[in-house]
Amino acid sequence: MTVNTTINSKTPPNPRNQIELERNNAQFDITKMNYFLEGSKERSEEVERFIQQMERDPILAASPKQYDFTKAEHREWTAKKIARLSKYIELETFDEFERRISLISVFDPQLHTRIGVHLGLFIGCLRGNGSFDQMGYWALKKETAFVKNIYGCFAMTELAHGSNVAGLETTATFDQEEDQFVINTPHIGATKWWIGGAAHSATHAAVYARLIVKGKDYGVKTFVVPLRDSKHDLLPGISIGDIGAKMGRDGIDNGWIQFSSVRIPRYFMLQKYTKVTADGDVKLPPNDQLSYSALLSGRVVMVKDAFRWSSRVITIATRYAVGRRQFKAATAKPDDLESKLIDYPLHQRRLIPILALTYAFSNGANVLAETSSKTLEELDDAVADENQAGIDAGIESMKSLFIASGSLKSTCTWLTLKNIDECRQSCGGHGYSSYAGFGKAFNDFAVQCTWEGDNNILGMSVGKQLVKNISSVLKDGVQTSGILEFLNNSKSIIGDKVILTPNDLKNPRKVLEAVEVAIVRASNQALITLDARNQDWDYIGADLVQLSKLLAHFFLLKSFLDKVDAIPERELVPVLDKLAQLYSASIILEGFSGIFLTYKVVSTETISYLSAEHIPTLCTDLRPHVIPLTDAFQLSDMMINSSLGSYDGNIYENYYKIVKDNNPPYIDKAPYSKDFEALLNRPSLEERQRDEISDEAQEILSSDK
Amino acid sequence: MTVNTTINSKTPPNPRNQIELERNNAQFDITKMNYFLEGSKERSEEVERFIQQMERDPILAASPKQYDFTKAEHREWTAKKIARLSKYIELETFDEFERRISLISVFDPQLHTRIGVHLGLFIGCLRGNGSFDQMGYWALKKETAFVKNIYGCFAMTELAHGSNVAGLETTATFDQEEDQFVINTPHIGATKWWIGGAAHSATHAAVYARLIVKGKDYGVKTFVVPLRDSKHDLLPGISIGDIGAKMGRDGIDNGWIQFSSVRIPRYFMLQKYTKVTADGDVKLPPNDQLSYSALLSGRVVMVKDAFRWSSRVITIATRYAVGRRQFKAATAKPDDLESKLIDYPLHQRRLIPILALTYAFSNGANVLAETSSKTLEELDDAVADENQAGIDAGIESMKSLFIASGSLKSTCTWLTLKNIDECRQSCGGHGYSSYAGFGKAFNDFAVQCTWEGDNNILGMSVGKQLVKNISSVLKDGVQTSGILEFLNNSKSIIGDKVILTPNDLKNPRKVLEAVEVAIVRASNQALITLDARNQDWDYIGADLVQLSKLLAHFFLLKSFLDKVDAIPERELVPVLDKLAQLYSASIILEGFSGIFLTYKVVSTETISYLSAEHIPTLCTDLRPHVIPLTDAFQLSDMMINSSLGSYDGNIYENYYKIVKDNNPPYIDKAPYSKDFEALLNRPSLEERQRDEISDEAQEILSSDK
Repeated sequence: MTVNTTINSKTPPNPRNQIELERNNAQFDITKMNYFLEGSKERSEEVERFIQQMERDPILAASPKQYDFTKAEHREWTAKKIARLSKYIELETFDEFERRISLISVFDPQLHTRIGVHLGLFIGCLRGNGSFDQMGYWALKKETAFVKNIYGCFAMTELAHGSNVAGLETTATFDQEEDQFVINTPHIGATKWWIGGAAHSATHAAVYARLIVKGKDYGVKTFVVPLRDSKHDLLPGISIGDIGAKMGRDGIDNGWIQFSSVRIPRYFMLQKYTKVTADGDVKLPPNDQLSYSALLSGRVVMVKDAFRWSSRVITIATRYAVGRRQFKAATAKPDDLESKLIDYPLHQRRLIPILALTYAFSNGANVLAETSSKTLEELDDAVADENQAGIDAGIESMKSLFIASGSLKSTCTWLTLKNIDECRQSCGGHGYSSYAGFGKAFNDFAVQCTWEGDNNILGMSVGKQLVKNISSVLKDGVQTSGILEFLNNSKSIIGDKVILTPNDLKNPRKVLEAVEVAIVRASNQALITLDARNQDWDYIGADLVQLSKLLAHFFLLKSFLDKVDAIPERELVPVLDKLAQLYSASIILEGFSGIFLTYKVVSTETISYLSAEHIPTLCTDLRPHVIPLTDAFQLSDMMINSSLGSYDGNIYENYYKIVKDNNPPYIDKAPYSKDFEALLNRPSLEERQRDEISDEAQEILSSDK
Repeated sequence: MTVNTTINSKTPPNPRNQIELERNNAQFDITKMNYFLEGSKERSEEVERFIQQMERDPILAASPKQYDFTKAEHREWTAKKIARLSKYIELETFDEFERRISLISVFDPQLHTRIGVHLGLFIGCLRGNGSFDQMGYWALKKETAFVKNIYGCFAMTELAHGSNVAGLETTATFDQEEDQFVINTPHIGATKWWIGGAAHSATHAAVYARLIVKGKDYGVKTFVVPLRDSKHDLLPGISIGDIGAKMGRDGIDNGWIQFSSVRIPRYFMLQKYTKVTADGDVKLPPNDQLSYSALLSGRVVMVKDAFRWSSRVITIATRYAVGRRQFKAATAKPDDLESKLIDYPLHQRRLIPILALTYAFSNGANVLAETSSKTLEELDDAVADENQAGIDAGIESMKSLFIASGSLKSTCTWLTLKNIDECRQSCGGHGYSSYAGFGKAFNDFAVQCTWEGDNNILGMSVGKQLVKNISSVLKDGVQTSGILEFLNNSKSIIGDKVILTPNDLKNPRKVLEAVEVAIVRASNQALITLDARNQDWDYIGADLVQLSKLLAHFFLLKSFLDKVDAIPERELVPVLDKLAQLYSASIILEGFSGIFLTYKVVSTETISYLSAEHIPTLCTDLRPHVIPLTDAFQLSDMMINSSLGSYDGNIYENYYKIVKDNNPPYIDKAPYSKDFEALLNRPSLEERQRDEISDEAQEILSSDK
């Protein structure tokens, strides 16, 4: 009897079928949901148009091939893509182009950064610190804004100085006789470091250096310093090197720069606020805050990034969780198939809160972006009109915006990094394949927790503002405005009245109130500790960071609820309400349960109920919507760029195909195979030891005749 | 007047000096502390000997060059290193060699895994599932244990099946006429996937396949299946491909395998427990648990890994934090230098608990390893002697060990992954450089949360045992033993008596008791929910994972305290006691404050005090010891392999040198520079549009004459 084993013992898995079933049961219009996510129908359609152009573009489209690129290939391709993008810049407005490249951030982050260093940081520095004419000359007359003639880099950070910008040590010393500044790197610690584009691309740098005039140090100001001539050769006195391998974003040529007595004309100094005359008279800015406004746009972009990156990874993880079966549920019948991952309560609890959080990110990012551009425009107008009242009002708005954006940048980037890794882990072993997309996402994203304001330092500075403001409210009876307005009620909130009962959990407005109360009580406690510790702010650093996180959630939840109240598409409200409930229950209340319980904002019974009943029920309620909710992000397969996350849900065949395309199986031996075979087929130890360790050798060598 | 800018404005940073000062003030003997960490003087000295051999070895030593390797280079070098290691295996005992390569795990994890697949998994499978003679033939007679003739891989996981081993779909159908098994992959989902070594190295596979005899399915058993002949050519019916790029561990040639009616002799089945006679009679194992013992050693290794990897990253972060200065402290005087990172309370609170946790890992790993080898030996002896009472006792010990090792593997790998990223973030931007070592560490380590038991699945299975056992204790009055012995007191512990007051925090034994109480109360609550939900175990999945984490901390803290009580070097006790206090206060109590508060094990006042006073005070107390405590790990610079973490603390010069060595600055243009220059120097848009969009063209083209 010969057994016929070519008959399959079981039918192959059919994940594709599963995702279709989910889509057939969609209970809302995903196009309308996308309007909610993008902020409006117009934006939603613009995004669709941009994506279509880019996913068909032979150079710009992302593909699984990238996951096998070497660093050299990443660098080369990124440069090629910048050249391709330069064709788009010439045909659309700067605002449109900015929105276009904000999409690139999610499918090609290194491209976004490498061109962003030039357009965002270099030109942003010109705009923020240069006079109107200086901006016009460098950005427009030289066609820099079209990536032409000049490629700029942003030379702020030094090897021994990052966050403390005021402590930078590069010097710009005024030489009155020659009417020049001499730019110099005094020692290794002052080497400009991490400078994106410096290694091979940049022709000019916006250099942050200490202004020294007549021996006096006026602090850190900005200067345009040419690095390479029009033949792309390094100028004299300029030493540049490649920083080399990084955790991620290999396509960016970060470099280091040392200046050895490099001379620039006086008019290369950016002088919107600070001016040095030919006689060496120095005029300082009316208000330091003004020159920091350039930092704002980076934060705004990063909150949007948090939304897009989280939407990408949760889409992959959700599609995989619907297609993948594993074990049988505890309640399964004998003939049932294995259960889908998404039907396990634990899996729901890992993924659906991330989905809810991503929805909160979307609108939070939109609100922050709108507030920010409005404030900056008003301030720019006031400065142009020399309208002092307008400037003062603008500075107040800026302060509030700095608090909001600081807490959001730090909190949202931390959460997104966590989301990426949680989604990876939820895909089990396959999440570890590069082609799944998580590894590169984590490595590329990780830096967002550090750059443009280290998250802990930002968090502390936000927390400090909270404590300072509550101190003013409580001790001096001052009223606050903007994002901290709720502090005005602090007196009545302090204490130990429980705010939230199990019945309140279904009302996210009530949770929002609980967040306010938690912030007030924790800020007040921090203030008490601070007073007991002689105003040693460092001592309460950890508390300040926690406060900043809570404030970010206050902003996100409030924006979310306000938006839900206002949207015209009322049919979306039921599912959005569940998302808001789950976000507030899991990410906020459960995530900070220690604080809510310690300050008696919620009772232990409420937390028990939250964990055992409320969150599981919300997950069950949202379970049927997970595929429509992720489809509503409208990320094309090119943007998803994952073996596990394609729209068709055909996880195994897609994955198998990508693996075979990138690693053709007919290459069945390694290039070094001969050496490995030699290892396995090596002669015996005795033979390799030339039989020197043997009875015969012993006899001869031991004999002393 | 010409300003002389070549005179430095400030003196360069001198981080080297700082670390010397710290060492001069060491208050304990770091060599003796290393005995504590390694478990004994003998082990400590053996580790030193192994490291010295390997760091001087021209092939085995790690170096910063690796951080610039391509995947192809990683693969080739890893194979070279295996060849080099094979020379050591021939000269030392298997136990010694195992301890040697456990060190390799931290400085060259891909090498550890690639050789571990062969020595640990393949030979481990032979040992666990093969008869004595089968083991003797395959491992020794064929010299496989010396990496000779045969290179084995472990073909368990399939594309559509990972954690659920019992659901694997590859078939091994008995052909009685030919006295052969026919191995077959029925469909794409059953493709063996992720198989380490399969792509290019392996000659044989230990294949997990469903045993089918006379049409009956006996479940998953193990078979030795040759893949390549002695010329390293693929055998007929074997299809193999390379899995390609991964998040980390690029040096391993993971592959996929499909078997198309591949025939092996009957005696290639491993038959320690299951036997098939020539007549097709099947004898099944007396006890399924026996065949799972092979999974244990992987878990033991991973807990040791948690210790070594955490010790490596915390050493880097601590040395950086001592050398790096940033901002001035809130309490600084005007002429003070910027403060060292390590002197900020927030920075202490980020790093010193990780240091304390790492100390807890060290001893926990040692205790687990000892218990494990003792239990396995006893069980092996009992099986060899056919001593049923011994087998039964052994199986009981194994159960306890599975619970302990499952909770420890999952909890310690999760914590270590977090430690790696927290240490990276604590080094700011420089942590993002590949040469700092964190990026590769994170990418290489990440898979440990997934492989050999996905952490969530392990955590749920451990939690389930806890709930089942507490149910037996409470409902049936059964007594438990082993790691769960404390459950026997459950009845008296349930309730809401507060266990821990602020005064108790200094007594880690009291915290240990609080952990027991929290576990009992949370298990009891899970049991109540379970009963209310018709025994739907999946519903309480999230609670089960939390229980497993708490159990791991119970094990770690208890082992730590027991060891401190027992060590002969009493002069180490004061600092070890502080570490135990900090571990229990921050990682356990603060980390799980929601649970401790919800179950009223601690009061809100205690948590307030913990956060505002107790943890900061412990950090301050431990601050002077951080350099000696990290030096005590005795990791050589080769093992640290980080631009920021060398023993000399000379962070900036070391980093600068590595960057320049790996990226020589004389290469000042990118290979694609000409293309980039062409982008910047491109003709005008009008010209490139052939002047078709112009007034002249408009006039001609609009005219209809």
